[in-house]
Amino acid sequence: MGSPTSIVRNMHYPLRVYIDKYAATTISDADFELVQKAFAFKRYKKGQYMLQEGEVCKYIAFILQGSMRQYSVDAKGGEHILHFGIENWWIGDRESLTMLTPSRYNIEALEDTEVLLITSENLQYLSTNLPAIGKMISMMDQRNFIASQKRIHDALSLTAEERFLELLKHHPDFLQRFPQTMLASYLGITAETFSRIRKKALK
Amino acid sequence: MGSPTSIVRNMHYPLRVYIDKYAATTISDADFELVQKAFAFKRYKKGQYMLQEGEVCKYIAFILQGSMRQYSVDAKGGEHILHFGIENWWIGDRESLTMLTPSRYNIEALEDTEVLLITSENLQYLSTNLPAIGKMISMMDQRNFIASQKRIHDALSLTAEERFLELLKHHPDFLQRFPQTMLASYLGITAETFSRIRKKALK
Repeated sequence: MGSPTSIVRNMHYPLRVYIDKYAATTISDADFELVQKAFAFKRYKKGQYMLQEGEVCKYIAFILQGSMRQYSVDAKGGEHILHFGIENWWIGDRESLTMLTPSRYNIEALEDTEVLLITSENLQYLSTNLPAIGKMISMMDQRNFIASQKRIHDALSLTAEERFLELLKHHPDFLQRFPQTMLASYLGITAETFSRIRKKALK
Repeated sequence: MGSPTSIVRNMHYPLRVYIDKYAATTISDADFELVQKAFAFKRYKKGQYMLQEGEVCKYIAFILQGSMRQYSVDAKGGEHILHFGIENWWIGDRESLTMLTPSRYNIEALEDTEVLLITSENLQYLSTNLPAIGKMISMMDQRNFIASQKRIHDALSLTAEERFLELLKHHPDFLQRFPQTMLASYLGITAETFSRIRKKALK
Protein backbone atom coordinates (compact mmCIF):
# COMPACT_ATOMS: atom_id res chain seq x y z
CA MET A 1 0.00 0.00 0.00
CA GLY A 2 1.29 3.44 -0.88
CA SER A 3 4.22 2.08 -2.91
CA PRO A 4 4.76 3.53 -6.43
CA THR A 5 3.40 0.28 -7.89
CA SER A 6 0.10 0.47 -6.06
CA ILE A 7 -0.28 4.13 -7.04
CA VAL A 8 0.14 3.17 -10.69
CA ARG A 9 -2.33 0.35 -10.19
CA ASN A 10 -4.93 2.67 -8.66
CA MET A 11 -4.50 5.15 -11.48
CA HIS A 12 -5.25 2.47 -14.06
CA TYR A 13 -8.02 0.88 -12.00
CA PRO A 14 -10.99 2.47 -13.86
CA LEU A 15 -9.55 1.08 -17.10
CA ARG A 16 -9.40 -2.39 -15.56
CA VAL A 17 -13.04 -2.15 -14.48
CA TYR A 18 -13.92 -0.97 -17.98
CA ILE A 19 -12.08 -3.86 -19.68
CA ASP A 20 -13.67 -6.47 -17.40
CA LYS A 21 -17.09 -4.98 -18.11
CA TYR A 22 -16.84 -4.77 -21.91
CA ALA A 23 -14.78 -7.90 -22.45
CA ALA A 24 -17.27 -9.74 -20.18
CA THR A 25 -14.32 -11.48 -18.53
CA THR A 26 -11.76 -10.85 -15.82
CA ILE A 27 -8.37 -9.81 -17.13
CA SER A 28 -5.46 -11.50 -15.34
CA ASP A 29 -2.87 -9.53 -13.37
CA ALA A 30 -0.18 -10.54 -15.86
CA ASP A 31 -2.23 -9.34 -18.84
CA PHE A 32 -3.17 -6.14 -17.06
CA GLU A 33 0.54 -5.43 -16.48
CA LEU A 34 0.88 -5.35 -20.29
CA VAL A 35 -2.12 -3.05 -20.55
CA GLN A 36 -0.66 -0.66 -17.96
CA LYS A 37 2.64 -0.55 -19.81
CA ALA A 38 0.86 0.29 -23.08
CA PHE A 39 -0.98 3.33 -21.67
CA ALA A 40 0.72 6.59 -20.69
CA PHE A 41 -0.79 8.82 -18.01
CA LYS A 42 -1.24 12.49 -18.87
CA ARG A 43 -2.82 15.58 -17.32
CA TYR A 44 -4.36 18.40 -19.34
CA LYS A 45 -5.20 21.75 -17.78
CA LYS A 46 -8.59 23.21 -18.67
CA GLY A 47 -8.29 24.75 -22.14
CA GLN A 48 -5.29 22.61 -23.18
CA TYR A 49 -5.47 20.69 -26.43
CA MET A 50 -4.88 16.97 -26.90
CA LEU A 51 -5.22 17.43 -30.68
CA GLN A 52 -5.35 20.42 -33.01
CA GLU A 53 -6.77 20.59 -36.52
CA GLY A 54 -4.17 19.67 -39.15
CA GLU A 55 -2.16 17.40 -36.85
CA VAL A 56 -2.15 13.63 -37.17
CA CYS A 57 -3.90 12.15 -34.13
CA LYS A 58 -1.31 10.02 -32.29
CA TYR A 59 -3.38 8.68 -29.41
CA ILE A 60 -6.76 7.55 -28.24
CA ALA A 61 -7.48 8.70 -24.69
CA PHE A 62 -9.35 6.93 -21.91
CA ILE A 63 -10.65 9.66 -19.61
CA LEU A 64 -10.02 9.05 -15.89
CA GLN A 65 -11.17 12.41 -14.59
CA GLY A 66 -12.51 15.57 -16.25
CA SER A 67 -14.04 16.18 -19.65
CA MET A 68 -13.09 17.03 -23.23
CA ARG A 69 -14.76 18.03 -26.45
CA GLN A 70 -13.96 17.10 -30.04
CA TYR A 71 -14.96 19.84 -32.47
CA SER A 72 -14.32 21.29 -35.90
CA VAL A 73 -14.26 24.90 -37.05
CA ASP A 74 -15.98 25.81 -40.32
CA ALA A 75 -14.90 28.40 -42.90
CA LYS A 76 -16.94 31.10 -41.11
CA GLY A 77 -15.37 30.32 -37.73
CA GLY A 78 -18.37 28.39 -36.41
CA GLU A 79 -17.60 25.54 -34.01
CA HIS A 80 -19.29 22.15 -34.37
CA ILE A 81 -19.01 19.69 -31.51
CA LEU A 82 -18.90 16.07 -32.66
CA HIS A 83 -18.34 14.52 -29.24
CA PHE A 84 -18.03 15.20 -25.59
CA GLY A 85 -15.88 12.88 -23.50
CA ILE A 86 -16.34 12.31 -19.76
CA GLU A 87 -15.03 9.80 -17.20
CA ASN A 88 -14.70 6.23 -18.57
CA TRP A 89 -15.23 7.37 -22.15
CA TRP A 90 -12.72 7.29 -24.99
CA ILE A 91 -11.84 10.24 -27.16
CA GLY A 92 -9.64 10.60 -30.25
CA ASP A 93 -9.88 10.92 -34.02
CA ARG A 94 -9.95 7.31 -35.16
CA GLU A 95 -9.80 8.22 -38.85
CA SER A 96 -6.65 10.32 -38.44
CA LEU A 97 -5.12 7.77 -36.05
CA THR A 98 -5.69 4.84 -38.42
CA MET A 99 -5.16 6.50 -41.80
CA LEU A 100 -2.39 8.84 -40.60
CA THR A 101 -4.26 11.75 -42.22
CA PRO A 102 -4.31 15.29 -40.78
CA SER A 103 -7.30 15.65 -38.47
CA ARG A 104 -10.11 18.08 -39.14
CA TYR A 105 -10.83 18.16 -35.39
CA ASN A 106 -9.64 19.81 -32.22
CA ILE A 107 -9.78 17.98 -28.90
CA GLU A 108 -9.76 20.32 -25.92
CA ALA A 109 -9.94 19.75 -22.17
CA LEU A 110 -13.06 21.46 -20.79
CA GLU A 111 -11.93 20.91 -17.19
CA ASP A 112 -8.61 19.86 -15.67
CA THR A 113 -8.50 16.36 -17.11
CA GLU A 114 -6.54 13.15 -16.49
CA VAL A 115 -6.30 10.56 -19.22
CA LEU A 116 -4.55 7.35 -20.21
CA LEU A 117 -3.16 7.61 -23.74
CA ILE A 118 -2.48 4.73 -26.10
CA THR A 119 -0.94 4.76 -29.58
CA SER A 120 -2.47 2.95 -32.52
CA GLU A 121 0.45 0.46 -32.57
CA ASN A 122 0.06 -0.38 -28.88
CA LEU A 123 -3.70 -0.74 -29.22
CA GLN A 124 -3.18 -3.06 -32.19
CA TYR A 125 -0.62 -5.04 -30.22
CA LEU A 126 -2.88 -5.47 -27.20
CA SER A 127 -5.85 -6.28 -29.40
CA THR A 128 -3.94 -9.04 -31.19
CA ASN A 129 -2.24 -10.51 -28.14
CA LEU A 130 -4.80 -10.19 -25.35
CA PRO A 131 -8.17 -11.77 -26.16
CA ALA A 132 -9.91 -9.62 -23.51
CA ILE A 133 -8.73 -6.45 -25.27
CA GLY A 134 -9.73 -7.80 -28.68
CA LYS A 135 -13.17 -8.52 -27.27
CA MET A 136 -13.40 -5.13 -25.58
CA ILE A 137 -12.52 -3.34 -28.83
CA SER A 138 -15.15 -5.33 -30.77
CA MET A 139 -17.77 -4.41 -28.19
CA MET A 140 -16.68 -0.75 -28.23
CA ASP A 141 -16.80 -0.64 -32.03
CA GLN A 142 -20.24 -2.15 -32.02
CA ARG A 143 -21.54 0.26 -29.39
CA ASN A 144 -19.92 3.19 -31.19
CA PHE A 145 -21.49 2.12 -34.44
CA ILE A 146 -24.95 1.83 -32.87
CA ALA A 147 -24.57 5.20 -31.11
CA SER A 148 -23.40 6.79 -34.37
CA GLN A 149 -26.41 5.43 -36.27
CA LYS A 150 -28.69 6.91 -33.65
CA ARG A 151 -26.90 10.25 -33.81
CA ILE A 152 -27.16 10.38 -37.63
CA HIS A 153 -30.81 9.38 -37.46
CA ASP A 154 -31.54 12.04 -34.83
CA ALA A 155 -29.69 14.73 -36.80
CA LEU A 156 -31.63 13.89 -39.96
CA SER A 157 -35.08 13.27 -38.59
CA LEU A 158 -35.69 14.88 -35.22
CA THR A 159 -36.77 18.45 -34.58
CA ALA A 160 -34.56 20.66 -32.39
CA GLU A 161 -36.94 20.08 -29.48
CA GLU A 162 -36.89 16.29 -29.90
CA ARG A 163 -33.09 16.32 -30.03
CA PHE A 164 -32.98 18.30 -26.80
CA LEU A 165 -35.31 15.79 -25.13
CA GLU A 166 -33.14 12.87 -26.32
CA LEU A 167 -30.13 14.58 -24.77
CA LEU A 168 -32.03 15.18 -21.54
CA LYS A 169 -33.05 11.52 -21.46
CA HIS A 170 -29.67 9.95 -22.22
CA HIS A 171 -27.21 12.49 -20.80
CA PRO A 172 -28.93 14.66 -18.16
CA ASP A 173 -25.48 15.21 -16.61
CA PHE A 174 -24.34 17.08 -19.74
CA LEU A 175 -26.86 19.85 -18.98
CA GLN A 176 -25.21 20.51 -15.63
CA ARG A 177 -21.69 20.10 -16.86
CA PHE A 178 -21.37 21.89 -20.21
CA PRO A 179 -22.22 25.45 -21.30
CA GLN A 180 -25.44 25.93 -23.27
CA THR A 181 -23.56 27.25 -26.32
CA MET A 182 -21.62 23.96 -26.49
CA LEU A 183 -24.71 21.82 -26.01
CA ALA A 184 -26.44 23.77 -28.80
CA SER A 185 -23.44 23.13 -31.08
CA TYR A 186 -23.51 19.42 -30.17
CA LEU A 187 -27.18 19.24 -31.18
CA GLY A 188 -26.61 21.30 -34.34
CA ILE A 189 -28.95 24.12 -33.31
CA THR A 190 -28.43 27.80 -32.49
CA ALA A 191 -27.81 28.93 -28.92
CA GLU A 192 -31.04 30.96 -29.04
CA THR A 193 -33.12 27.95 -30.08
CA PHE A 194 -31.41 25.85 -27.41
CA SER A 195 -32.16 28.40 -24.70
CA ARG A 196 -35.82 28.69 -25.74
CA ILE A 197 -36.34 24.92 -25.87
CA ARG A 198 -34.56 24.35 -22.58
CA LYS A 199 -36.73 26.86 -20.75
CA LYS A 200 -39.87 25.30 -22.19
CA ALA A 201 -38.79 21.71 -21.46
CA LEU A 202 -37.62 22.30 -17.90
CA LYS A 203 -40.77 24.15 -16.83
CA MET B 1 -18.05 -26.28 -64.50
CA GLY B 2 -21.79 -25.81 -64.64
CA SER B 3 -22.40 -28.24 -61.75
CA PRO B 4 -24.66 -27.09 -58.90
CA THR B 5 -21.57 -26.63 -56.73
CA SER B 6 -19.90 -24.24 -59.12
CA ILE B 7 -23.14 -22.28 -59.47
CA VAL B 8 -23.27 -21.84 -55.70
CA ARG B 9 -19.65 -20.89 -55.75
CA ASN B 10 -20.21 -18.22 -58.40
CA MET B 11 -23.13 -16.77 -56.49
CA HIS B 12 -20.97 -16.31 -53.40
CA TYR B 13 -17.93 -15.14 -55.36
CA PRO B 14 -18.34 -11.38 -54.72
CA LEU B 15 -18.42 -12.14 -50.99
CA ARG B 16 -15.18 -14.10 -51.31
CA VAL B 17 -13.50 -11.19 -53.09
CA TYR B 18 -14.81 -8.87 -50.39
CA ILE B 19 -13.47 -11.04 -47.55
CA ASP B 20 -10.04 -11.38 -49.17
CA LYS B 21 -9.90 -7.61 -49.64
CA TYR B 22 -10.93 -6.56 -46.13
CA ALA B 23 -9.25 -9.37 -44.24
CA ALA B 24 -6.07 -8.64 -46.27
CA THR B 25 -5.59 -12.39 -46.68
CA THR B 26 -6.81 -15.23 -48.89
CA ILE B 27 -9.48 -17.36 -47.32
CA SER B 28 -9.00 -21.11 -47.87
CA ASP B 29 -11.51 -23.22 -49.81
CA ALA B 30 -12.36 -25.16 -46.65
CA ASP B 31 -13.04 -21.98 -44.67
CA PHE B 32 -15.04 -20.49 -47.50
CA GLU B 33 -17.23 -23.60 -47.53
CA LEU B 34 -18.20 -22.69 -43.94
CA VAL B 35 -18.88 -19.11 -45.03
CA GLN B 36 -21.12 -20.28 -47.88
CA LYS B 37 -23.10 -22.50 -45.54
CA ALA B 38 -23.64 -19.62 -43.12
CA PHE B 39 -25.17 -17.30 -45.74
CA ALA B 40 -28.59 -17.81 -47.33
CA PHE B 41 -29.29 -16.48 -50.82
CA LYS B 42 -32.45 -14.42 -51.26
CA ARG B 43 -34.13 -12.34 -53.99
CA TYR B 44 -36.24 -9.28 -53.27
CA LYS B 45 -38.47 -7.75 -55.93
CA LYS B 46 -38.37 -3.97 -56.24
CA GLY B 47 -40.52 -2.54 -53.44
CA GLN B 48 -40.23 -5.63 -51.20
CA TYR B 49 -39.12 -5.21 -47.62
CA MET B 50 -36.25 -6.99 -45.91
CA LEU B 51 -37.23 -5.34 -42.59
CA GLN B 52 -40.21 -3.33 -41.41
CA GLU B 53 -40.42 -0.94 -38.47
CA GLY B 54 -41.32 -2.73 -35.24
CA GLU B 55 -39.80 -6.07 -36.27
CA VAL B 56 -36.59 -7.42 -34.79
CA CYS B 57 -33.91 -7.44 -37.51
CA LYS B 58 -32.89 -11.07 -38.02
CA TYR B 59 -30.23 -10.72 -40.70
CA ILE B 60 -27.47 -8.59 -42.09
CA ALA B 61 -27.45 -8.63 -45.91
CA PHE B 62 -24.51 -8.57 -48.30
CA ILE B 63 -25.85 -7.11 -51.55
CA LEU B 64 -24.88 -9.06 -54.69
CA GLN B 65 -27.02 -7.15 -57.17
CA GLY B 66 -29.47 -4.26 -56.89
CA SER B 67 -29.96 -1.64 -54.22
CA MET B 68 -31.84 -1.00 -50.98
CA ARG B 69 -32.58 1.85 -48.63
CA GLN B 70 -32.83 1.92 -44.84
CA TYR B 71 -35.23 4.61 -43.63
CA SER B 72 -37.45 5.69 -40.77
CA VAL B 73 -40.83 7.38 -40.83
CA ASP B 74 -41.49 10.25 -38.41
CA ALA B 75 -44.74 11.11 -36.61
CA LYS B 76 -45.80 13.36 -39.51
CA GLY B 77 -45.17 10.63 -42.10
CA GLY B 78 -41.87 12.10 -43.33
CA GLU B 79 -39.28 9.56 -44.51
CA HIS B 80 -35.64 9.85 -43.43
CA ILE B 81 -33.06 7.76 -45.28
CA LEU B 82 -30.20 6.63 -43.05
CA HIS B 83 -28.43 4.47 -45.65
CA PHE B 84 -28.45 3.32 -49.20
CA GLY B 85 -27.02 -0.10 -49.98
CA ILE B 86 -25.57 -1.09 -53.36
CA GLU B 87 -23.51 -4.01 -54.69
CA ASN B 88 -20.83 -5.24 -52.25
CA TRP B 89 -22.28 -3.21 -49.37
CA TRP B 90 -23.89 -4.52 -46.22
CA ILE B 91 -27.27 -3.46 -44.95
CA GLY B 92 -29.19 -4.28 -41.76
CA ASP B 93 -30.10 -2.76 -38.40
CA ARG B 94 -27.15 -3.72 -36.22
CA GLU B 95 -28.75 -2.34 -33.06
CA SER B 96 -31.92 -4.41 -33.48
CA LEU B 97 -29.92 -7.46 -34.57
CA THR B 98 -27.58 -7.35 -31.58
CA MET B 99 -29.92 -6.08 -28.86
CA LEU B 100 -32.99 -7.98 -30.15
CA THR B 101 -34.98 -4.73 -29.92
CA PRO B 102 -37.75 -3.78 -32.38
CA SER B 103 -36.25 -1.77 -35.23
CA ARG B 104 -37.21 1.81 -35.92
CA TYR B 105 -36.23 1.29 -39.56
CA ASN B 106 -37.58 -0.10 -42.81
CA ILE B 107 -35.27 -1.73 -45.34
CA GLU B 108 -36.74 -1.79 -48.84
CA ALA B 109 -35.41 -3.04 -52.19
CA LEU B 110 -35.22 -0.09 -54.61
CA GLU B 111 -34.55 -2.41 -57.56
CA ASP B 112 -34.87 -6.18 -57.98
CA THR B 113 -32.16 -7.17 -55.54
CA GLU B 114 -30.14 -10.30 -54.73
CA VAL B 115 -28.53 -10.66 -51.33
CA LEU B 116 -26.75 -13.10 -49.06
CA LEU B 117 -28.30 -13.10 -45.58
CA ILE B 118 -26.55 -14.05 -42.36
CA THR B 119 -27.97 -14.29 -38.83
CA SER B 120 -26.26 -12.72 -35.82
CA GLU B 121 -25.44 -16.20 -34.44
CA ASN B 122 -23.82 -17.35 -37.67
CA LEU B 123 -21.86 -14.12 -37.99
CA GLN B 124 -20.66 -14.53 -34.41
CA TYR B 125 -19.72 -18.14 -35.12
CA LEU B 126 -17.71 -17.28 -38.23
CA SER B 127 -16.10 -14.32 -36.53
CA THR B 128 -14.91 -16.48 -33.62
CA ASN B 129 -13.81 -19.50 -35.66
CA LEU B 130 -12.38 -18.03 -38.85
CA PRO B 131 -9.63 -15.44 -38.27
CA ALA B 132 -10.22 -13.95 -41.75
CA ILE B 133 -13.84 -13.20 -40.88
CA GLY B 134 -12.87 -11.78 -37.49
CA LYS B 135 -10.39 -9.51 -39.26
CA MET B 136 -12.92 -8.54 -41.93
CA ILE B 137 -15.49 -7.58 -39.30
CA SER B 138 -12.95 -5.46 -37.39
CA MET B 139 -12.06 -3.65 -40.59
CA MET B 140 -15.74 -3.16 -41.49
CA ASP B 141 -16.53 -1.82 -38.02
CA GLN B 142 -13.63 0.57 -38.21
CA ARG B 143 -14.62 1.81 -41.66
CA ASN B 144 -18.26 2.11 -40.61
CA PHE B 145 -17.25 4.06 -37.55
CA ILE B 146 -15.12 6.46 -39.59
CA ALA B 147 -17.87 6.88 -42.21
CA SER B 148 -20.43 7.51 -39.46
CA GLN B 149 -18.25 10.18 -37.85
CA LYS B 150 -17.97 11.92 -41.19
CA ARG B 151 -21.72 11.71 -41.74
CA ILE B 152 -22.46 13.19 -38.28
CA HIS B 153 -19.89 15.91 -38.85
CA ASP B 154 -21.35 16.75 -42.25
CA ALA B 155 -24.93 16.80 -40.91
CA LEU B 156 -23.93 19.14 -38.09
CA SER B 157 -21.55 21.47 -39.83
CA LEU B 158 -22.00 21.56 -43.62
CA THR B 159 -24.48 23.67 -45.55
CA ALA B 160 -26.99 21.92 -47.83
CA GLU B 161 -24.82 22.83 -50.83
CA GLU B 162 -21.65 21.48 -49.23
CA ARG B 163 -23.43 18.22 -48.38
CA PHE B 164 -24.56 17.89 -51.98
CA LEU B 165 -21.00 18.42 -53.20
CA GLU B 166 -19.68 15.78 -50.77
CA LEU B 167 -22.24 13.33 -52.15
CA LEU B 168 -21.27 14.21 -55.72
CA LYS B 169 -17.61 13.66 -54.84
CA HIS B 170 -17.92 10.35 -52.98
CA HIS B 171 -20.99 8.75 -54.61
CA PRO B 172 -21.56 10.25 -58.08
CA ASP B 173 -23.32 6.98 -59.01
CA PHE B 174 -26.07 7.70 -56.45
CA LEU B 175 -27.18 10.70 -58.52
CA GLN B 176 -27.86 8.47 -61.52
CA ARG B 177 -29.35 5.65 -59.54
CA PHE B 178 -31.70 7.12 -56.93
CA PRO B 179 -34.61 9.56 -57.20
CA GLN B 180 -33.96 13.16 -56.15
CA THR B 181 -36.54 12.99 -53.37
CA MET B 182 -34.60 10.10 -51.79
CA LEU B 183 -31.24 11.81 -52.18
CA ALA B 184 -32.71 14.93 -50.53
CA SER B 185 -33.95 12.79 -47.63
CA TYR B 186 -30.51 11.13 -47.33
CA LEU B 187 -28.90 14.57 -47.07
CA GLY B 188 -31.55 15.86 -44.65
CA ILE B 189 -32.73 18.66 -46.95
CA THR B 190 -36.01 19.37 -48.75
CA ALA B 191 -36.59 18.15 -52.30
CA GLU B 192 -36.89 21.77 -53.46
CA THR B 193 -33.54 22.74 -51.96
CA PHE B 194 -31.97 19.61 -53.45
CA SER B 195 -33.30 20.40 -56.91
CA ARG B 196 -32.10 24.02 -56.78
CA ILE B 197 -28.61 23.05 -55.57
CA ARG B 198 -28.30 20.25 -58.09
CA LYS B 199 -29.12 22.53 -61.01
CA LYS B 200 -26.62 25.11 -59.80
CA ALA B 201 -23.85 22.56 -59.13
CA LEU B 202 -24.21 20.66 -62.40
CA LYS B 203 -24.19 23.75 -64.61
